[in-house]
Amino acid sequence: MSLIVTGSIGIDTIETPDGKIANSVLGGSSIYFAGAASFFGGVRLVGAVGEDFPDEFVTPFTDFGVDIAGLERRAGSKTFRWHGKYLPNMNDRETVSVDLNVLIEDLPPVPSAYGDSEYVFLAVTSPQNQLALLDQFPKKKLVVADTIDLYINTEADALDEVIKRVDGLIINDSEAELLTGKTNAIEAADELVKRGPTFVVVKKGAHGAILRHRDGYAVLPAYPSTRVIDPTGAGDSFAGGMMAYLCATDDTSLPSLKKAMAYGTMVASYTIEAFSIQRLTEISRQDIDSRFAEFANMLEITA
Amino acid sequence: MSLIVTGSIGIDTIETPDGKIANSVLGGSSIYFAGAASFFGGVRLVGAVGEDFPDEFVTPFTDFGVDIAGLERRAGSKTFRWHGKYLPNMNDRETVSVDLNVLIEDLPPVPSAYGDSEYVFLAVTSPQNQLALLDQFPKKKLVVADTIDLYINTEADALDEVIKRVDGLIINDSEAELLTGKTNAIEAADELVKRGPTFVVVKKGAHGAILRHRDGYAVLPAYPSTRVIDPTGAGDSFAGGMMAYLCATDDTSLPSLKKAMAYGTMVASYTIEAFSIQRLTEISRQDIDSRFAEFANMLEITA
Repeated sequence: MSLIVTGSIGIDTIETPDGKIANSVLGGSSIYFAGAASFFGGVRLVGAVGEDFPDEFVTPFTDFGVDIAGLERRAGSKTFRWHGKYLPNMNDRETVSVDLNVLIEDLPPVPSAYGDSEYVFLAVTSPQNQLALLDQFPKKKLVVADTIDLYINTEADALDEVIKRVDGLIINDSEAELLTGKTNAIEAADELVKRGPTFVVVKKGAHGAILRHRDGYAVLPAYPSTRVIDPTGAGDSFAGGMMAYLCATDDTSLPSLKKAMAYGTMVASYTIEAFSIQRLTEISRQDIDSRFAEFANMLEITA
Repeated sequence: MSLIVTGSIGIDTIETPDGKIANSVLGGSSIYFAGAASFFGGVRLVGAVGEDFPDEFVTPFTDFGVDIAGLERRAGSKTFRWHGKYLPNMNDRETVSVDLNVLIEDLPPVPSAYGDSEYVFLAVTSPQNQLALLDQFPKKKLVVADTIDLYINTEADALDEVIKRVDGLIINDSEAELLTGKTNAIEAADELVKRGPTFVVVKKGAHGAILRHRDGYAVLPAYPSTRVIDPTGAGDSFAGGMMAYLCATDDTSLPSLKKAMAYGTMVASYTIEAFSIQRLTEISRQDIDSRFAEFANMLEITA
C-alpha cells in the first residue's frame, strides 16, 4: 500500500509560556505528518516551498525516508511562515503572525509515479485544491481530509463538497463546532458523518480524541504527559501515525481505526516533547510500541 | 464491607442553556454519591438538612436503600441551597446564588452503628469537619476526600492536613490546578501524590478523568454522550460509583481502581441524562453493566 500527504511545509517561530522561543524552525502540517508516518512505512509528499527554504530543512524529509519527488522549490515564491504563542495551559495558542505565501498559489503537479497512491491524506489547504487532488488518485482506497476555520468561514460550499467525497475527516473540536454549530463534540461528529464520510475523528488536544464511525464510536484520552515543550504538530503527527498504520495494515475497519488512533496518539505524545520535529528524529518504532503497550495497559478496565 | 459518605444535601435550582429550568429539586453531593453507590451495595449517610427540607426529598434516599440513621433534620436551621446556570458548552457553569445555611454549622453526630465503616468518602465540607470525621472510623481501610476552591482559598492549612491523612483525593481539574499552581493535570496529580495520598483522581468533566497512583497512571475518557440534560452531580456520581465498586470488591489495587473509575464514569453518564437524580431512579445495575461493556469495547485498542 502507498500513502500520500499533501500539506503545508513552513518555517515556524514558536513561543511557549515559560519564555522559551524557537526561531525559524521547520514546521507545517506535512513534515509532522510525514515524520510520524515514517515509523510505519513510506510516505509520498506533494507540497511547495519558496526559494527562501533552507537546504538543511530538506534533510529531515529525506532522513524520514519521505518520497519528495512532489516537493517543489518555487522560484519567485516565499515559504509559508507561522509565528505562534502558546497560552499557559499549553493546549490553546494565539497566532502572532502568519504569511501564507506559497500556500495561496497553485499546488505543485502530482508526480506521475504517485498516481497509484491508495491512502491519501489531504492536509489543510483550500477545499478547491483538495477537490483537485481527489481526482488524481484513481486507485484511492481511503481519502481523509483536515481543514481549518479559515476555509470553513470563506469556502463553505467547496468544503461541503470535500466532506461529501472523502472517507474520513480528522479535525479539531473547535472546527467540528464551527462546521456544525454543535458544542457537544459527539453531536458534531454525528452530524458530520451524515454529510458523507464513513468516519470523523474529533481531536481535543490534551483531552484526547473521539471517533464517530458509521458502525460505532471510539474514545481515547491523550497519553498522560508531563513533558510538554511544544504542542505544535501534535494533531498532524496524530493524523500521520493514524493514516500510516491504516495503510500498513490495509485495514480500515472500526477496530483497526481505533488501534490506528492509539498509534497516532503515541506519536503525538512524543512530538510535543521538544520543539519542532526534534523528538521524532530521536525515537524509534520500538519506543512507540513500548509506549503503546503502556497506554493500552492504562486503558485496560476489564482485567 | 461498609461504605459511608458525609456530604451536602441540598435544594437546587438548575438552569440550562436551552432555557430549561429545574426549580427546587433535590441536590447536594451526598444524594448523587449515594444514589450512584446504591447500584453496588449499601451506603451510610451523615449529613444535616434544615427544617425546610421537604419530606418527599427523603424518599429517594430510602428508595436507594441508603442508611439514613445519620441524616439529621435540624430545627431552627435551613437547608443548603444552590442555584446554578450552565454555559452553552454544558461543561462549565456559573453559580447564580448559594446559601450554605446548615452546611456551616457542626456536622451531625456519627451514629455509633457507623463506627465500623471501612470505606469512607469525605465529600465537600470544611477541612476541619473532614479531619474531625477521620478520627471516628477506627476500622477505616480507605478514606477518600473531595474539596472545592472555597476551602483551598480559605483553609489551606487544615486542607493540607486532610491531604496528608487520606488515602485518596477525587477532585476537579480546576481544583487540582488551584491546589498546586500547575496547569497540566498530570503534573498537578504528581505533586498531590507527594503530599500524602496513595492516589489522586482528577476529574475533567466531559473530558474524562486521570488517575495518578503511586504505582502508575490511568486515563479514561468520558462516555461519549449526546444526551446531556443536566451535568449537576456527575462528579459526585462518579465518586459514588467508584467508591462503592471498591468497597464491594474490597480491592484497592491499581487495576481495581481503574475498573472502579470506569464504573463511576458509567453512572455519571446516566446522571447527566436528566435533571437532578431522575435518571438514577430509572436505571438498573444491568444498564450500568451493559454500558460498561460497550465502553470497554470502545477503549479496546489491542484487539
